[in-house]
This record gives sequence, C-alpha cells and structure tokens, in this order.
Amino acid sequence: MSPKLPGNQRQVLLRRYPEGVPETTDFELAEGPVPQPANGEFLSRTLYLSLDPYLRGVISGRHLYAEQVRPGGVMPGRTVAQVVESRHPDFAPGDIAVCSNGWQEYGLSAGAIDLRKLDPEAAPVSTGIGILGMPGLTAWAGLLHLGEPMPGETVLVSAACGPVGSMVGQLARIAGCQAVGIAGGAEKCSIVKDEFGFAECVDYKTGDLGEKLKAACPGGIDVYFDNVGGEVLAAAMANLAQGARVVLCGMMSGYNNAGPPPPGPSLIPLIMARAILRGLVVYDHEDKQKDFLRACTRWLQEGRIRYREDIAHGIDKAPEAFCRLMRGKNVGKALVRFA
Amino acid sequence: MSPKLPGNQRQVLLRRYPEGVPETTDFELAEGPVPQPANGEFLSRTLYLSLDPYLRGVISGRHLYAEQVRPGGVMPGRTVAQVVESRHPDFAPGDIAVCSNGWQEYGLSAGAIDLRKLDPEAAPVSTGIGILGMPGLTAWAGLLHLGEPMPGETVLVSAACGPVGSMVGQLARIAGCQAVGIAGGAEKCSIVKDEFGFAECVDYKTGDLGEKLKAACPGGIDVYFDNVGGEVLAAAMANLAQGARVVLCGMMSGYNNAGPPPPGPSLIPLIMARAILRGLVVYDHEDKQKDFLRACTRWLQEGRIRYREDIAHGIDKAPEAFCRLMRGKNVGKALVRFA
Repeated sequence: MSPKLPGNQRQVLLRRYPEGVPETTDFELAEGPVPQPANGEFLSRTLYLSLDPYLRGVISGRHLYAEQVRPGGVMPGRTVAQVVESRHPDFAPGDIAVCSNGWQEYGLSAGAIDLRKLDPEAAPVSTGIGILGMPGLTAWAGLLHLGEPMPGETVLVSAACGPVGSMVGQLARIAGCQAVGIAGGAEKCSIVKDEFGFAECVDYKTGDLGEKLKAACPGGIDVYFDNVGGEVLAAAMANLAQGARVVLCGMMSGYNNAGPPPPGPSLIPLIMARAILRGLVVYDHEDKQKDFLRACTRWLQEGRIRYREDIAHGIDKAPEAFCRLMRGKNVGKALVRFA
Repeated sequence: MSPKLPGNQRQVLLRRYPEGVPETTDFELAEGPVPQPANGEFLSRTLYLSLDPYLRGVISGRHLYAEQVRPGGVMPGRTVAQVVESRHPDFAPGDIAVCSNGWQEYGLSAGAIDLRKLDPEAAPVSTGIGILGMPGLTAWAGLLHLGEPMPGETVLVSAACGPVGSMVGQLARIAGCQAVGIAGGAEKCSIVKDEFGFAECVDYKTGDLGEKLKAACPGGIDVYFDNVGGEVLAAAMANLAQGARVVLCGMMSGYNNAGPPPPGPSLIPLIMARAILRGLVVYDHEDKQKDFLRACTRWLQEGRIRYREDIAHGIDKAPEAFCRLMRGKNVGKALVRFA
C-alpha cells in the first residue's frame, strides 16, 4: 500500500430515513477505514460525486435495482475517481474512472460492470457522470430511441435546465427538431434558451401551464420527454399532436412522497392523440453507450452541446447539495467536488 | 315510393342530457316523417340497432368525431337495415347493409363511407354491427396491430364478456396466447371461460383484483387490452410483465361522469415494466377491415369464434336497453331488434 494513503477517510452516512424532502440532519459525517483492494479490485480516490434524484428512491427502497440504504450505511452514488492502488488488470494508479464510490473519499471497485476509464484529454472528467455519463445516455436513449423524433417536429422536455433535460433539447435541435423546455423560474428559463439553445422555454411556476404550452407548441407536441410527472405531465398530455410519443423518464414530483404513488394524469388525451407512452429505464440502454459517447464527445468538443454544473466543494457539503437538488434549487448537474 | 311504406315512423329522441348514468326518462318515443331518398341516397328499414358505450360520449359532446346530440334530436347509432328504396348506384331494394339510421325505423344513407353490404349467407346479419362489425374490428386492430401479441404470451382484457372483450380473448387464443378476462360477476365469468374459451376469468366485483390478477397471470401480463379505465386499469398496470403493451380502448368507468376526466393510474409501474401504452381509435383502422372480415368470417363459420347478443325487442325498448348497457348489465353485444 502506498505510504501516501491515510488509514481513515471521511464518509457521509444516512442517519435516518427522511420524511418528505430530505434535510441535512438526515445525514451525518463519519470516519471509516480506507479499505484495501483484493485481487481483481482497485482502490480509487473520489474526485467528483454525482448527486441524482434517483438516490431519493434508493433511500426509500423504491429503486428498481439498487439495494436500499439503511441508517448507518454509507450513501451510495456514482463518482469520478482516480485509481490509487490497483490489483485490477485493466486499471493502473493514476487512471481516472467512472465508478461507484458513494459518498466517501475512497472506494473499491471490482469487475467491469459500471466501470469506465476516462480520457482527460477528450473532455473534463466531471462530464463522465454528467453530459457524457448516465444523464447524457438517458437523454440519448430516451429521445432518439424511444421518442423517435423526426426533423421538423416539436420536442418538449421538462426539467429542461437539468442534466437530462438540457441534453434532450440539444439533441432534439441537432436532430432538426424544435426544442421547447419547461423549467421553474425566469433564471432557469433564460439559461435553457440562451445557453442550451432551446427555441422556447416555459416557466411552470407562473400562469396556466396548459395555455402556455399551447402557445409555445402551436402545432402540438410531437415528443414529450417527461422528467417530473404530476401536473406538468398532465398539462403536456393535453397538448399532444396526433401520433405523439411520450417518454416517461422520471417522476421528480413524486420522489419525496411517502406512501403509495399518487394517481397519474387522465389517459383520455392519449387515446384522442393516438399517442404512445413509454417508460425509460436507462440501464436497458447500455448497448447504446458506444454510439452515444462517440457522437456526443465530438459535439461537446465542437461546442455543439453545452452543459452546466452546480458544484459543491467538499464532502461535508454533500448533504446540503443533495437537499438543494431535491428541492429543485440546483442549476445544472449537481456535483460535489472533493478536496 | 313503394306503396308499402308508411308516411310516418317511430323514433327515439334525446329528451334531456342525462346526469351520470342515463335513465329511460332521458329519452322519449316520437313520430317523425319517413324521408325520401335524393339522388345518390337510399332509404332503408332498420332491422337491428347497435347500442354502444361510445353513444354516452356522443350525448355529452365528448366523442372524438360524432356531433353532439341535442335534446329533441334523434339518437344516433349504427344499424343493420334493409334497403326499401334506392337512388344509390350500389344498393338495390332488398339489400341488407350496415348503415347509421340511428334510433328510428327508417333512415337515409348516402355515399360510401360507413356503408357495407352484408351477405346473409355468410353470417347472421346482426353480426355486421357486432363481432363482424366495429366491435370486432376494434378487437382485431387493438390486439393484433397495437398489442402485437406473441404466441405463448398472456393477454388480459377487461369487459371480457362484452363484444370487444370476448373477441380480444378469442383472437388471443387463436394467436397462441393465454387469454385471461376480467368481468363483473360469476355469470359473466363463466360465459367468458365456457363460451369464449378464455383460460381464466377474474371477477372484479369480489376480493382484491390486484392479487387475483397476480394469481391468474403468474408470469405477468404481456398485453393488457383495457376497456374500462379506472381502478381495473391500475390493478392491471401493477401486474405487467417486462416489455408489456397496454392498449387503451375505452374508459367505460368514466363515461357516465360529468366534469373533467378523473386522474389515471400512476405511471410508475409502466416505467418499471418498460411497457408501452397506446391509445386505440378504431376509425384509424378502416384499412384493416378487409383482412379482418376475411379471417373472422371464416372463423365464425368454422365455430372457432363465438359471440353472444343481448337483444331487446322493439324500438320502444331501446332506451331501457341502453341504460342497462351503461350500468354494465348486458351480457353480450347490446342490440335492439326492430319489429
């Protein structure tokens, strides 16, 4: 073991199950040992931690795959990390990788699943958990493979200022579509239009959303990429064009709720529009990663797609940053940059 | 004009807009003139009147295409009728046709849209508005074209004893699937199994529907053909197999409601199952009619598909029969046989 490595590290544990929107007091900072890699594993030092709404579901035991975190357990999460010690054949000290260290300074990785080596020359490494990571792949697969947009069509996406939504609109624009966003507040709407190049962005916090969508999408919505569910989804479904495709990616509006999921929108507009509604689970689309990375890395280098990060500094800021995210206060991809 | 023809005829008018479930007092019997065909039209005498849940939407002005009926207006409806006088090039007196005379003894038809000549040798003419009519085509297009069932899969259909549902299950069986029905009450469930040959039928009126569906579809539901919406739809969506297809055909549970449509089921199970949900509008599928009729007329002649009719006798019984239908009291295709 390298002499530089400390014996202990800082971690963030779940202290108790949050009720509703998480509070910083639901988490606690702790110290734990730095583990040693076994054969086939590597140890890496966390550079960036990704904060994502799906973690709220993991805490509640509602995530499709991930095991529920129990109080006293280390919070899980995707990370960009630098290999410090390796007994893994494909990773050497100094390599930078996307892995799942969770909310701690060091973590072990094994096998090939979920691991991806990053080329710091190709793009800033933080994009490996952002626009060139799972959020980007979510947008790619959901828009292009499930939404099947045709040039000239109108693509609407909610949470348009977030890492998935902003990518959906930019991909829609590249695919020859009219990109319309929904976001909360004037600041986010400006960013969606000015930075991400959407044709239009509707603020769901003021006025009648249905009427505003009708005005922003006069020919109807051909593809609606939904990140929020609830009333925003209902308003979008009332404005579908004939033959529309609705891609359900997330249900942010319900993540903080306890109890059984609330009802969804009336499906009668879906029948009237002869629309198709499909659920998206990004883990099903790993086979598209190579195509996605090839295209999007180049577009990023060329400046055809942009991203925005909302970075907290230091592991001790992770709980606060996560709580802000779950209140929709972040602007751009929520990350924690470790010291 | 033929001397046999009376100058007046009986009609059923809408007397007032029903509140909730229609009552017979919402309709009234009246007398009106027998019209004379203009050039390109024919006059026909109604033999059978089709009663369908969509008529409730026509009364409320909620139907996709049909113009709202106003109080004092003749109730509309599909009919099987015999031509008595013709100035139409393709129809001669004595011909039997599917047309839209509505709730009256005689009506005029023009043009080719919505008209189909029936061969009384091929099948009983009442099937022209039943299993070989719009309900049959609805089942055909919705199951085979939108549901895309694969042999070995489990197909679930609600209102399984009705004209659409019973056909969906029989087509599913012919397509090599396991057909499971949902119906209300032991009598209907027996008919669904014994007469229509479904593998299983679940009574939604007793016990926990979700649990019963889980037991009846242990591998999950691959195709769900929904005729009712509401809680039945929610229970089915909680039991979808991975990659399921949900076809929304009707929303019987909401047809009698005033006001805006009630919310639909939570869509989270749809995401979890990576399912596709599609709305069916039968008018989009007229191009499939020839294939549908060729196959189903033969299967009917061979006894591979069956149907059941719930026949009221006499035009004066039409309101009562329609109200029974809207209470779900009919067993089989609701028809009125005219004297």
